Amino acid sequence: MIRHVVLFTWTEDATDEQKAAVAPELRKLPAAIPQIRSYTVGPDAGISPGGHDFAVVADFDSVADFETYRDHPVHQAVIAERIKPIMATRAAAQLSL
Amino acid sequence: MIRHVVLFTWTEDATDEQKAAVAPELRKLPAAIPQIRSYTVGPDAGISPGGHDFAVVADFDSVADFETYRDHPVHQAVIAERIKPIMATRAAAQLSL
Repeated sequence: MIRHVVLFTWTEDATDEQKAAVAPELRKLPAAIPQIRSYTVGPDAGISPGGHDFAVVADFDSVADFETYRDHPVHQAVIAERIKPIMATRAAAQLSL
Repeated sequence: MIRHVVLFTWTEDATDEQKAAVAPELRKLPAAIPQIRSYTVGPDAGISPGGHDFAVVADFDSVADFETYRDHPVHQAVIAERIKPIMATRAAAQLSL
C-alpha cells in the first residue's frame, strides 16, 4: 500500500471562505478517482500549537494508482483553483506499507 | 477519531545509520502506549520529487489519548535521542475525523 501524506499552510491573505472550500472540494475526488482506497482530509484541529493548517492522508493499492490520482485532471483542477491561490507552504511524503 | 500527521526532513549531516534507526524505534511505541489505535511510520518512498524525508500517521480515539501519546516519556525519549539530533524541519497537524 502507498500512503500519501500532505501538510499545507495557508497564506495570511487567505479568507475563511477560501480555507473552508478546500476540504469539500477534495472530498469529491474519491467519487471521480476510483484508485483512491481511503481519503482523509481536513483542517488542523487546533490541539497542539504550531501546527500546519491542513492535512491530507490518501491510501492507494499501488504506486501506479497513486500516480493516477496525483496527475488526474479533476485533482489538478482542485489544486489549481482551490489550493494554489491560498497555499503558503506544502510538505509531502509517501509511505510504502 | 484524531489522526496525527507529521512530516520530517533530516539534516544534511544525518548518517544513513541515524536515519535508519528512527522507524524501528518509533514502531516500538504502540507496545508501550496502548492509547495508539493505529500507527504507520517510515521514510519517504521516493516516488515524487521534493518530498519530505519521513512521515508519521497515528490514530487515536480521543484528544486525551493523543495527548497521552504526545507527552509520553517513552515517546519523548525517541524524540530526544533519535529524531531531534537529525531533524532539520518538522510539519504536523491533527485531523478530527
